[in-house]
Amino acid sequence: MATPLTVKTLVLKPKTAKSAAVTPVMIVALDETSTNLTALAKHLNLKEMRFANEDLLQSFFQVNKDEVSPFVLGNTPKDQLANVILVLDAAVAKLSTSETPLSFNAPGFTAPVLSTAPALLEFFRNLPLAYKEVDFSTMAPAAAPGPAKASAAPAAKKAAAAAPKPKPEAVVGSAQLGVEVSKDADFSKWYQQVLVRSEMLDYYDVSGCYIIRPWAYFVWKMVQRFFGDGIEQMGIDDTYFPMFVSSKVLDREKDHIEGFAPEVAWVTKAGSSDLEEPIAVRPTSETVMYPYFAKWIRSHRDLPLRINQWCNVVRWEFKHPMPFIRTREFLWQEGHTAHLTHEGAAEEVLEILDLYRRVYEELLAVPVVPGMKSEKEKFAGGQYTTTVEGFIPATGRGIQGGTSHHLGQNFSKMFNVVVEDPAAGNEDRGTEGGEAQKLHVWQNSWGLSTRVIGVMVMVHGDDKGLVMPPRVAQIQAVVIPCGLTVKSTAADRAAVEEGVKKVVATLTRAGVRAKADLRENYTPGYKFNHWELRGVPLRLEVGPNDLKNASTMSVRRDTGAKRSIAVADLPTELPSLLETIQADMLQRAKAARQASTKTVTQWEDFVPALNRKCVVLIPWCERTACEDDIKDRSARTTTDTDEPEDEKAPSMGAKSLCIPFDQPTEPKLVPGETKCVACGELAKRYALFGRSY
Amino acid sequence: MATPLTVKTLVLKPKTAKSAAVTPVMIVALDETSTNLTALAKHLNLKEMRFANEDLLQSFFQVNKDEVSPFVLGNTPKDQLANVILVLDAAVAKLSTSETPLSFNAPGFTAPVLSTAPALLEFFRNLPLAYKEVDFSTMAPAAAPGPAKASAAPAAKKAAAAAPKPKPEAVVGSAQLGVEVSKDADFSKWYQQVLVRSEMLDYYDVSGCYIIRPWAYFVWKMVQRFFGDGIEQMGIDDTYFPMFVSSKVLDREKDHIEGFAPEVAWVTKAGSSDLEEPIAVRPTSETVMYPYFAKWIRSHRDLPLRINQWCNVVRWEFKHPMPFIRTREFLWQEGHTAHLTHEGAAEEVLEILDLYRRVYEELLAVPVVPGMKSEKEKFAGGQYTTTVEGFIPATGRGIQGGTSHHLGQNFSKMFNVVVEDPAAGNEDRGTEGGEAQKLHVWQNSWGLSTRVIGVMVMVHGDDKGLVMPPRVAQIQAVVIPCGLTVKSTAADRAAVEEGVKKVVATLTRAGVRAKADLRENYTPGYKFNHWELRGVPLRLEVGPNDLKNASTMSVRRDTGAKRSIAVADLPTELPSLLETIQADMLQRAKAARQASTKTVTQWEDFVPALNRKCVVLIPWCERTACEDDIKDRSARTTTDTDEPEDEKAPSMGAKSLCIPFDQPTEPKLVPGETKCVACGELAKRYALFGRSY
Repeated sequence: MATPLTVKTLVLKPKTAKSAAVTPVMIVALDETSTNLTALAKHLNLKEMRFANEDLLQSFFQVNKDEVSPFVLGNTPKDQLANVILVLDAAVAKLSTSETPLSFNAPGFTAPVLSTAPALLEFFRNLPLAYKEVDFSTMAPAAAPGPAKASAAPAAKKAAAAAPKPKPEAVVGSAQLGVEVSKDADFSKWYQQVLVRSEMLDYYDVSGCYIIRPWAYFVWKMVQRFFGDGIEQMGIDDTYFPMFVSSKVLDREKDHIEGFAPEVAWVTKAGSSDLEEPIAVRPTSETVMYPYFAKWIRSHRDLPLRINQWCNVVRWEFKHPMPFIRTREFLWQEGHTAHLTHEGAAEEVLEILDLYRRVYEELLAVPVVPGMKSEKEKFAGGQYTTTVEGFIPATGRGIQGGTSHHLGQNFSKMFNVVVEDPAAGNEDRGTEGGEAQKLHVWQNSWGLSTRVIGVMVMVHGDDKGLVMPPRVAQIQAVVIPCGLTVKSTAADRAAVEEGVKKVVATLTRAGVRAKADLRENYTPGYKFNHWELRGVPLRLEVGPNDLKNASTMSVRRDTGAKRSIAVADLPTELPSLLETIQADMLQRAKAARQASTKTVTQWEDFVPALNRKCVVLIPWCERTACEDDIKDRSARTTTDTDEPEDEKAPSMGAKSLCIPFDQPTEPKLVPGETKCVACGELAKRYALFGRSY
Repeated sequence: MATPLTVKTLVLKPKTAKSAAVTPVMIVALDETSTNLTALAKHLNLKEMRFANEDLLQSFFQVNKDEVSPFVLGNTPKDQLANVILVLDAAVAKLSTSETPLSFNAPGFTAPVLSTAPALLEFFRNLPLAYKEVDFSTMAPAAAPGPAKASAAPAAKKAAAAAPKPKPEAVVGSAQLGVEVSKDADFSKWYQQVLVRSEMLDYYDVSGCYIIRPWAYFVWKMVQRFFGDGIEQMGIDDTYFPMFVSSKVLDREKDHIEGFAPEVAWVTKAGSSDLEEPIAVRPTSETVMYPYFAKWIRSHRDLPLRINQWCNVVRWEFKHPMPFIRTREFLWQEGHTAHLTHEGAAEEVLEILDLYRRVYEELLAVPVVPGMKSEKEKFAGGQYTTTVEGFIPATGRGIQGGTSHHLGQNFSKMFNVVVEDPAAGNEDRGTEGGEAQKLHVWQNSWGLSTRVIGVMVMVHGDDKGLVMPPRVAQIQAVVIPCGLTVKSTAADRAAVEEGVKKVVATLTRAGVRAKADLRENYTPGYKFNHWELRGVPLRLEVGPNDLKNASTMSVRRDTGAKRSIAVADLPTELPSLLETIQADMLQRAKAARQASTKTVTQWEDFVPALNRKCVVLIPWCERTACEDDIKDRSARTTTDTDEPEDEKAPSMGAKSLCIPFDQPTEPKLVPGETKCVACGELAKRYALFGRSY
């Protein structure tokens, strides 16, 4: 493949009257083209062009300076687009029939993506906007760009410069090799890069929606199998309700729906006809299902009724989206059950919560804290919410991992889900028209979403990329031929390849998900990086020396530890090594969590602990007013510009994550005596507070 | 529970001026209330009320006369609702605080459903319509209703009369016991009743959407497992793309989208804000995925790219919906793959088609005919479509079971999915800007939907209800205590119950999905019906005599055959008996299909064969004009009123179902000699024609 040509995208703001609309100039040019801006301004009959500042880039194109590319025009509102002056370097236009790859920035991508001039031109032609072709070669070489200030750095220049020139051996896809930022330095960028470059996820042209690629979807499949088996054993059946909800039904439970209403997506048209009534896309299914509970539950003998569905739901949040963590469409399971007694429901709430804990701890090697949500944080319309709370050491923020709600009788009263009380005597003797003793059923709902994948990535990933827990890795061991040189004979190569295949076959028989990487045009080093980026738990190297010794060199992704293993021992050693890795990953994550969990007994230590990226355990009064107050008092007052912008926690005040079931014993909380750390009223229990997602 | 009171719903049309709007009167009254219509007309100051005819019921309330109930008002367009005069019997209103069940017709239900007066009154209060309470007891008893004609039978009277009075022992849910129409007599009604009463499906308040209940969803789970394992072994990965599509992307491939455009559902609002651009809900994912194929496929080494997703799709058809068979939202899997060569793609097309065949034949015991779709019937935008065609003997109609498309290069050209041709020399040597030999990839797509469930029900069900193939039955054997009488002692009962539990435990250990029905308040006969309706493949009876003999009586659902089996033999006998049932069901269905497949060599026999509920094999020219012509010529000219209305096949003309891969050999088709049965041109191959879904 031809070496890609880097394309720069410059955005400039010509001087206009203060009252006039801003008319940004976007220049799309080869990096090597010398763009004389003064000459260009003259050519376009514009005054003094300065590089656009971040504000303009954000308000016009919704991107930051590292993301500027011609492709942002595809997402620019039409009325704004009309004001953009688009300039195309004639040197690019000249490539209109060439397949030479062009390297661009692109929104959502932290590394250049490749395209071609024909594709770019087609994209331009489809915009409601004419571009001007400019031949910069006929203009004098550029001087320093106008009177630009430090704060108005060239939009794409920096990124273009940072993009490594593809090396000859790096064949295709080179732009996406490796993670370029460290997890500590820029967590948000690291997270995006890891997801995209490990091929877990791709960005999509509908904001807040993402493509879950096979490498990530496999994790979800493992979660589905584990949790699916768990609830099947509990006697819970899978079902599927329509994703469309009539507005009548959606609005039925006011308290409940209030929380979702601003985020509901509405279908109003089919083909070219307007629907008679708009139809909602489910944000969750309580109001969808419970009218049918009322219909299906005719007697206490129909209880418990327990169903679950795996489906997509839509919550059209206007907050900053984040792959897996906060997305407009996501996949989840939602369980909905009805019970005769409060206790029957309460028992199930905890059984399910424990399955959630096990999904995190046993599959994803992520420790979680099971506990109770505060009144403020519980599911609206329910009686209480239990949760498993995760923690991201890199940002010091808590994250809700999955919730299991006891709904009490709120919904059953709303939807009239009643049975006659079996304790009130023989129900069959109820006299006609008489008032039999009726009883509203007790309900639960519980859900776990694809968010689990994001949490797993955030907790385990490192500067080389993903680190996959073996139990959810689609490939658990990759086997790579090594030690071949230019001096190696064809027979050497064939023998090594044979050895690799044999190892894979042995592992497959032993139940290990193994893969050979026999690609010829890549070096072992390239392959090491490739699989490290994807987090494959074990790498096995097979070279001429290994063959001689009938052994293979194993390298752990999590620790880098190397160990030679006899081929004969692989069927026993490998599965056990994978289990060791799984256990070690959980232990390390537990230790990291523990190190960042501080028990605090005076308010003065609260915010400093948060600022040291910790979550905080305090004796707490459990009052909502106190929780509100804590949030206010723990908000940062100075703007920390390194922190990724997140509107969900704009001021990053702490909220209660949960009241852990496993309460600290030291220092002892004495009821009626110990005071709430935040407000001085009497404390009830320890609560875990933290900044959070 | 109190005995339900039957409620009648009468719809009448008062005489109005021809030009005036129709103002139907709906009377909701206790069945026992004598409704004097003449007196009522006077009371309401209306003239001559006649019972509404079907036209009025359909146009106003979209229901037929058997479905009339007050609840139809919930779905009546508001502008029409304004013209309805709603009359409530004071005897019903008086029950406003009573929980006495009221028995109603309800749209979509073929048996009465139960509600209560408080629920009814709340429903009325929520309507944008005031109701008039009328005390009929103060009026004189009714005479024969006005000058009603035979063609204007009372709307609900018939249904109310047909509703069996619940028997005392039939406890709750009695209204939904058993199927009331025979499969032959009224197939459409039979199908609905079987689905609803076996608890496979429930109707939903968004038209064309249905609830898939656990009994049916389990079948889908089995299909997912079988097919999922099959494609996993082929190396195809699961993935998930967003369900939302921007209009820009959706419109990309014109030919393709033309077929879907009229059926696309559009989201235009989120919360209370209008979206800047409407966003489509995927009807299928070709245009969603292939831009990413273009991005991901950078080299021939990335081929084949093969992904699959299990998801929901929406096609907002305005045709008559039919549960599982034609629904606005449905679940399916869609596979999308890209290959370097035409042949590589072609091979996969058939591999997948064979998996589809096996899903039908090996899991669902439904025979299918694999073959090629005609040019007219193939997937638009693809090169050719292969299909497995099912057949419903009861209606004599074919049904498309699943399709596997070779897309050729149509989409890869549209989305520019190219690689450099590895056969054209070392691609890495391509000179910069030069024209390397590029190659558009070859693509396939293939899908199988929840329609499979409907086909299974239609093929195997009988007048007692469902007949489930053992491999997809959630319960394969139900064990029922029998032979206990009023004389049986408590010890007898305990022994039998113990025996039942032991049998279930034995079966479970042997890998059989078994369940004990130990409900105390139901007779064995009731339980037999209950499980027969649900199609459980085997019933095992355990009574005092069986205990003595250490045996159990087995009864097959498919044949009714009884056989005593020693308890000791259950672990071997039962699994093998289930496999026998599975095999026998397929054989019977094959025989039925064969008996209804006619090879026809002269046109005169074509339509008569269709009219005898057959599908027809003919030597065919394969011309689209000829296919159009066949459809016209085979359409029924007289209206057969027994046939359920189906706008998909308004005239029920025959279309080509497929060109079977397995071609008839008798009579021999001689190329260049044998003529097309329909048009007399030269025939190419035998094609299967039929009326169809």
